[in-house]
Amino acid sequence: MKETEITRAIVEEYTQNFLDALESDIVVVGAGPAGLTAAYYLAGAGLKTTIVEKKLSTGGGIWGGGTGHNVIVVEQTEILDEIGVRSHERDGLYTSGAVELAAALTYQAEQAGARVFNLTEVEDVVVKDGAVCGVVINSTAILMASLHVDPVCMGARKVIDATGHAAELIRMLRQREPDFLADGIGEGFMDVETAERGVVERAGEVYPGLYVAGMSVCTVYRLPRMGPIFGGMLESGRRVAELICAALGA
Amino acid sequence: MKETEITRAIVEEYTQNFLDALESDIVVVGAGPAGLTAAYYLAGAGLKTTIVEKKLSTGGGIWGGGTGHNVIVVEQTEILDEIGVRSHERDGLYTSGAVELAAALTYQAEQAGARVFNLTEVEDVVVKDGAVCGVVINSTAILMASLHVDPVCMGARKVIDATGHAAELIRMLRQREPDFLADGIGEGFMDVETAERGVVERAGEVYPGLYVAGMSVCTVYRLPRMGPIFGGMLESGRRVAELICAALGA
Amino acid sequence: MKETEITRAIVEEYTQNFLDALESDIVVVGAGPAGLTAAYYLAGAGLKTTIVEKKLSTGGGIWGGGTGHNVIVVEQTEILDEIGVRSHERDGLYTSGAVELAAALTYQAEQAGARVFNLTEVEDVVVKDGAVCGVVINSTAILMASLHVDPVCMGARKVIDATGHAAELIRMLRQREPDFLADGIGEGFMDVETAERGVVERAGEVYPGLYVAGMSVCTVYRLPRMGPIFGGMLESGRRVAELICAALGA
Amino acid sequence: MKETEITRAIVEEYTQNFLDALESDIVVVGAGPAGLTAAYYLAGAGLKTTIVEKKLSTGGGIWGGGTGHNVIVVEQTEILDEIGVRSHERDGLYTSGAVELAAALTYQAEQAGARVFNLTEVEDVVVKDGAVCGVVINSTAILMASLHVDPVCMGARKVIDATGHAAELIRMLRQREPDFLADGIGEGFMDVETAERGVVERAGEVYPGLYVAGMSVCTVYRLPRMGPIFGGMLESGRRVAELICAALGA
Amino acid sequence: MKETEITRAIVEEYTQNFLDALESDIVVVGAGPAGLTAAYYLAGAGLKTTIVEKKLSTGGGIWGGGTGHNVIVVEQTEILDEIGVRSHERDGLYTSGAVELAAALTYQAEQAGARVFNLTEVEDVVVKDGAVCGVVINSTAILMASLHVDPVCMGARKVIDATGHAAELIRMLRQREPDFLADGIGEGFMDVETAERGVVERAGEVYPGLYVAGMSVCTVYRLPRMGPIFGGMLESGRRVAELICAALGA
Amino acid sequence: MKETEITRAIVEEYTQNFLDALESDIVVVGAGPAGLTAAYYLAGAGLKTTIVEKKLSTGGGIWGGGTGHNVIVVEQTEILDEIGVRSHERDGLYTSGAVELAAALTYQAEQAGARVFNLTEVEDVVVKDGAVCGVVINSTAILMASLHVDPVCMGARKVIDATGHAAELIRMLRQREPDFLADGIGEGFMDVETAERGVVERAGEVYPGLYVAGMSVCTVYRLPRMGPIFGGMLESGRRVAELICAALGA
Amino acid sequence: MKETEITRAIVEEYTQNFLDALESDIVVVGAGPAGLTAAYYLAGAGLKTTIVEKKLSTGGGIWGGGTGHNVIVVEQTEILDEIGVRSHERDGLYTSGAVELAAALTYQAEQAGARVFNLTEVEDVVVKDGAVCGVVINSTAILMASLHVDPVCMGARKVIDATGHAAELIRMLRQREPDFLADGIGEGFMDVETAERGVVERAGEVYPGLYVAGMSVCTVYRLPRMGPIFGGMLESGRRVAELICAALGA
Amino acid sequence: MKETEITRAIVEEYTQNFLDALESDIVVVGAGPAGLTAAYYLAGAGLKTTIVEKKLSTGGGIWGGGTGHNVIVVEQTEILDEIGVRSHERDGLYTSGAVELAAALTYQAEQAGARVFNLTEVEDVVVKDGAVCGVVINSTAILMASLHVDPVCMGARKVIDATGHAAELIRMLRQREPDFLADGIGEGFMDVETAERGVVERAGEVYPGLYVAGMSVCTVYRLPRMGPIFGGMLESGRRVAELICAALGA
Repeated sequence: MKETEITRAIVEEYTQNFLDALESDIVVVGAGPAGLTAAYYLAGAGLKTTIVEKKLSTGGGIWGGGTGHNVIVVEQTEILDEIGVRSHERDGLYTSGAVELAAALTYQAEQAGARVFNLTEVEDVVVKDGAVCGVVINSTAILMASLHVDPVCMGARKVIDATGHAAELIRMLRQREPDFLADGIGEGFMDVETAERGVVERAGEVYPGLYVAGMSVCTVYRLPRMGPIFGGMLESGRRVAELICAALGA
Repeated sequence: MKETEITRAIVEEYTQNFLDALESDIVVVGAGPAGLTAAYYLAGAGLKTTIVEKKLSTGGGIWGGGTGHNVIVVEQTEILDEIGVRSHERDGLYTSGAVELAAALTYQAEQAGARVFNLTEVEDVVVKDGAVCGVVINSTAILMASLHVDPVCMGARKVIDATGHAAELIRMLRQREPDFLADGIGEGFMDVETAERGVVERAGEVYPGLYVAGMSVCTVYRLPRMGPIFGGMLESGRRVAELICAALGA
Repeated sequence: MKETEITRAIVEEYTQNFLDALESDIVVVGAGPAGLTAAYYLAGAGLKTTIVEKKLSTGGGIWGGGTGHNVIVVEQTEILDEIGVRSHERDGLYTSGAVELAAALTYQAEQAGARVFNLTEVEDVVVKDGAVCGVVINSTAILMASLHVDPVCMGARKVIDATGHAAELIRMLRQREPDFLADGIGEGFMDVETAERGVVERAGEVYPGLYVAGMSVCTVYRLPRMGPIFGGMLESGRRVAELICAALGA
Repeated sequence: MKETEITRAIVEEYTQNFLDALESDIVVVGAGPAGLTAAYYLAGAGLKTTIVEKKLSTGGGIWGGGTGHNVIVVEQTEILDEIGVRSHERDGLYTSGAVELAAALTYQAEQAGARVFNLTEVEDVVVKDGAVCGVVINSTAILMASLHVDPVCMGARKVIDATGHAAELIRMLRQREPDFLADGIGEGFMDVETAERGVVERAGEVYPGLYVAGMSVCTVYRLPRMGPIFGGMLESGRRVAELICAALGA
Repeated sequence: MKETEITRAIVEEYTQNFLDALESDIVVVGAGPAGLTAAYYLAGAGLKTTIVEKKLSTGGGIWGGGTGHNVIVVEQTEILDEIGVRSHERDGLYTSGAVELAAALTYQAEQAGARVFNLTEVEDVVVKDGAVCGVVINSTAILMASLHVDPVCMGARKVIDATGHAAELIRMLRQREPDFLADGIGEGFMDVETAERGVVERAGEVYPGLYVAGMSVCTVYRLPRMGPIFGGMLESGRRVAELICAALGA
Repeated sequence: MKETEITRAIVEEYTQNFLDALESDIVVVGAGPAGLTAAYYLAGAGLKTTIVEKKLSTGGGIWGGGTGHNVIVVEQTEILDEIGVRSHERDGLYTSGAVELAAALTYQAEQAGARVFNLTEVEDVVVKDGAVCGVVINSTAILMASLHVDPVCMGARKVIDATGHAAELIRMLRQREPDFLADGIGEGFMDVETAERGVVERAGEVYPGLYVAGMSVCTVYRLPRMGPIFGGMLESGRRVAELICAALGA
Repeated sequence: MKETEITRAIVEEYTQNFLDALESDIVVVGAGPAGLTAAYYLAGAGLKTTIVEKKLSTGGGIWGGGTGHNVIVVEQTEILDEIGVRSHERDGLYTSGAVELAAALTYQAEQAGARVFNLTEVEDVVVKDGAVCGVVINSTAILMASLHVDPVCMGARKVIDATGHAAELIRMLRQREPDFLADGIGEGFMDVETAERGVVERAGEVYPGLYVAGMSVCTVYRLPRMGPIFGGMLESGRRVAELICAALGA
Repeated sequence: MKETEITRAIVEEYTQNFLDALESDIVVVGAGPAGLTAAYYLAGAGLKTTIVEKKLSTGGGIWGGGTGHNVIVVEQTEILDEIGVRSHERDGLYTSGAVELAAALTYQAEQAGARVFNLTEVEDVVVKDGAVCGVVINSTAILMASLHVDPVCMGARKVIDATGHAAELIRMLRQREPDFLADGIGEGFMDVETAERGVVERAGEVYPGLYVAGMSVCTVYRLPRMGPIFGGMLESGRRVAELICAALGA
């Protein structure tokens, strides 16, 4: 019966992909602008890169632009040009379509070899010998439905917290290790210029095996928040990819 | 202040885009597989094509593959090849990554010149002289929040109902014109082969000015439903684009 | 890493089981008293028997006895004795522990070779050449979370609707084929004696390929409802198993 | 098509108003009794005054009077007389219609030149060089719908927190600067006489660039709360307007 | 104690107002654009006019303009000029601030002598000798809280259903008298020009004692709907006021 | 019209009762077993006694007995006998019908002259010169509906917190005066014998003007909790009444 | 341990009461004004009378008076006088305290020998030989929690539907027997005088074994509704008691 | 009437069981893997063992395996073999069906003489003379429905907290006795090997009369968490049973 053949093809291919991803070089948590950019460069460098995204769709906060006006702003177009996103100059800034950017980043990351597992939520991290070496994942649907079901695990050499303002993995670490980032975390008042610079400069490893990219950098280092300007996000993702490539010799 | 400059750039560009879209050649309602494919071909033929999508993200039911296994199946790869989506042969069927397909379709439709207005929901249709000539839209956020706020309008020469199983525009028409499709609507039991064929053959105009593409074709003609096989969806979108190009001489 | 080895063992074994179940002899929908009993006898007769249950746990309405007093009543103990459930005579009736019965029925059905897929919900039926030949299933969690995700399919030679009062598959058929059971369905006022007899006598095939067992028999034939007396349920399940064995020559 | 002309007129005019408000002299947050009164006097003094209100309607807590009895009480009628609200003497107090007061204050503030942006919520403040110089705003509908969408900004020379008991901007400042108002905030037990006097006397600047008016004064200085007596609210708004006019030389 | 004096003043004045309103000349249900305009002219003609509004605030759908852009459009400014609302010509249409219009209409209706009872919902109508002669009201808060509490009544010589699209009183009548408006009700597709004309021309008495004004006219006569253009609403309210004045000899 | 006469009679009588209660001798907050008993004895001693109850019905936790078995237990029947409630001896304890007790207590308190204002919730206390002298009340329906509406006040010479486990007034005081009951509050593990004795012995004044009765005594003094035994509750209410009569010379 | 002795006393007494009630003369469904009055007279006549009430408290709609003003109105005081409820003459009507009435009716019904099972909901009726002879009940808590738990039964010689507007038992019968009351049911517009008379005159048996009392009479015979006037309710309950006593020879 | 006979049989038997359980040797709280295993061995040793489970069904987290793949993993099969659960070797681990395990454990515990009270939730503990000697229980349905109803009690010589991650009884003790486990509780990052060993070794008495088994051991001793591996859970349950048998001389 064709219906069951289709079912078989889907389940077999997905399971093969999933089992293959159980031991990745890098697990990127969060498929927003920073996570997708990091994955694009990491996969492009030949590392086995897995992206875990809790929603059905990737793109994170890109889709809504500012208050739902689906346009975003950058100050330089280098990365946009590289991934094939059109932009327009407007009073010294560059604008692009938010939908186009979300789609292009996702498409290029997948084409580069990164594999997204959407509808998959990170519940916890695996820490061995003082270093993060994996994530504990569950089905988003199971969590949304508040069902009593255990999670499973994915292993990785390096993990990136690209979960945005929430800095979800950082918070999990801090809940169990009160001394970690003991001065507190949390983004500051909005100040675009300081934030755009800091989110790139401070991106990097914050705990053995765990890196931060994008808005979670602001949360960790108490940098100002920014609004619907995405240049820093993209560069922050690229910066983390460079650091990990250097660390892994890729 | 840089913060307000960014705000200004976003609001001005979005408003310009929106006002420009008030009189489109085609409004496609629903940015799922059929709607995006139709928009890709229509915009490629030089028609001013506007896509209205109620969610933040495009891609509709593609993202989840089958029961969340993010893989989809087609029987031919012609359109996938054209839009740059990789596929694998498996027992006579072809599988592709669901995330890659959702992103590629969106990216190619935007690149071809179609413009997506996401977070925008169609509340009603505009009918003049017995023909659909526009849609009544509201902000999805306003509707989700159940606020008492009036909608506005977008005009178009042709409108496509690519809203999937729901066939939302068809239902709006039937609610007001009980004689329209008087034998009833609603998709049938699952039968992939019949459905895949029918969804392409029966795609087309169902009311002056209004076309159906994708699963809404099944709903209108009581065809069987199908599962996570997307070949018919893509071809149904292409078929409607061809018919509209012919009708408008594009 | 041991964590990922465990993950691998679980996912591989489950997927193997699932793919194996894509073509079963019988799919039983609903793991309540009638469905489990039917599965116990069918698997015992050597047929490949798959049970689809939307909740996490099996047992259906057994667990709560009457208004939460976790005791159930039967009039004969033959089946209870066979599956190893203790009972006590009380004024001409026999009582058993509701928890013991739910556990024993599940355990014996699994031991006999039936395999339960819990957290799995039937969304639709597959009908070919006028006969039910499979079910369209989705993850309960996905449905509870109202996510936009397509279902997949399971094929079977015979399907049993053991979904209780709701008679869910019957309702799906009636929604698409208004002439099916045109006099209407729905259980009647409570009348234990009539119901206990009818639920056994009328159990059987109601549509090519589709059988009813348990309370869905009452719904189909407008028989009276009963309360927390479970003898008829068990016998109704056994009766359907006998009819299917006869039909399939098992 | 007339429908799209109307759409165009609305969107163009609103966008023009919004862009014009991106750099205001004063942003008043909250269109309750104190905020509207402050705006009425500020706009009357020729300052560009923008009111940001999260609800659809203005008037705040005025509409419900006391426990829904839509009557309010003042001890002097000077401001009521000025804005054209009728009042009645009753045992040494003056009563007015709550609906009349809410409407009159809004109408007079708008006529004086203040512009209300309703359905707009302040998410954060912009702080530069140690002073509040703007607010970070989002669409209330987007926030009510819990959508993942970034905010935008409005700049101002002075900002007034007229958000009532909640003192929302004060709380945002305190969350990021734990030393600000380190002795704690929160209104006290009800004591009308003390509160009515204090809410006027203590109204003013509490942080460079940020003023409090109305009930947020009680929250900041731990003054008693009051009930449905509105004289102090109105005078507190007028007092803040006077202080800002003096500060800005208007 | 001053606190209880304030309580006493509010409760006494409200109760006096409420008891006085128990026998009004006209009860207007709904304080949106049509209802407030009708009340303004009726009270101005010396009739005892009571407005019942279920929300806390008046103004209905005016506040949100179109999709939250708080601007509204009219084609003539006669009524706006009369009630003191500023307007701007834009391409042959006139725009006004939505907030200013909502406030001005409310203020002028109250000043003319109409009295609003907000937070008060109509549950039913009183019909005697075949004519509507009152409304059955309850506290909106009680209804929102789903409490089991009986309503009370208000009597009137004439009642106006100005409840907008919902046409709530019309629906109550139809539920009990299936023959009333037997051809069905419900507004049609959007068509501004036809709707703007019809909503004024067809405004009037639809059942002995019961008049419709504003969008409920469209619902009753199956006229097209309109969007955020409010001229017809205002004129429809004025038209009903004229008809009632004529009927009552006021 | 009879309907409005009924309305008038109800509103006038209620308002008269309410205004009369604005200055009571005692306000009892909570119409559970302790509050009703206190009110019964206080009103019986000639004091003007007002009971404020947030639910529609009085009786508090009496109705459900233990886990919904509507029977309660006491160790002595003196108060039950006095208010006319039947009881049965069972193994050294006395049982009574929960429904009968709830009704009898309410009936006797009203007959003794206490007046219940149900559907009325205490939001805050009025404190002057260091003593509680009134309560700030709102409509429960308004609070349940989360409407933005101000409360009003009731004055009293003495106030009783008979709100049960929650000790609501105590918590309000502690929130504003952190030094009050600085060692913390909260009931202890269940221990019926200790609790039954303590709830009577420790009942009394805890803050100038504020008394506790019933379970709020356990909360204040960290006494053990008890289950569905109500003798201590009744005696605790009587004890507080005696203390207040002594204090007020009644 | 005293704690378990109390538990034992409660559970034993309740179970004894419950088992005793399994075969009653009359089951009254609904403990509102009509149901309690009927039970008071039936029990007073020596019949074994069981009241089933789904809420925790009895009294139904009495507690809230009119829109929460807790006063009710009657036109004659005969029954009030009999059950010991005080009333006041006001303009030809009589007012009583709603709380006092709810408590007194409950107390007198229990004293007369009727037994209330609260928190108990009727799910269905038992019909044998064409006559209602029992009710199918479940725990309200189980139904509120949407748990999958079977109900149990109570038998009776006569059953009274005193469930108010909802006429719940009548609706259950009609759902299964479409010919019963084929002209439809539902109360009419408010008209106090007609309703007060009809609710008494038409009270009685509507189906073998099933009687209606109170507002369910209006629903069955499409009589007008009434507001917070309770004389007819009480008399309707007494009337049904008289008819049943006559039928049963009590 | 048969219906009431069935009701009587159920209620009588349940009540007898419940009263008999009021004084147990052991109350096990939580019918998950650890609790059921403990109960199986305790009852097997002849101790009167009562299991209290808040859900309708037993089995806890077993049913869902890992992320809903209903397979579980153990490292040794000794206990599985003893209770009759089939297992398969897979790369050095053993897998079993989750449904089979949940059913078998429940069935064997009941057969051994333990009695489950499902739909029953522990609200608090009874502590006398410094030792836990019982639990305070309520109906889960009542708690889910947020009804104001008192609990009852069950006494026991020893109580086991087998409530999993939540360690519910431990938390109740800590809330009242801040010095208990003063260094804090909470499970650690996932580390299967350490956790599997620790959950067995540290199982035991943590407070006089109170034991922990299963995941609550991890929570108490801050051990790592584990995923869907159940060997440690079963052994932890067995270990606690051995310790209690030793303590009670059974």
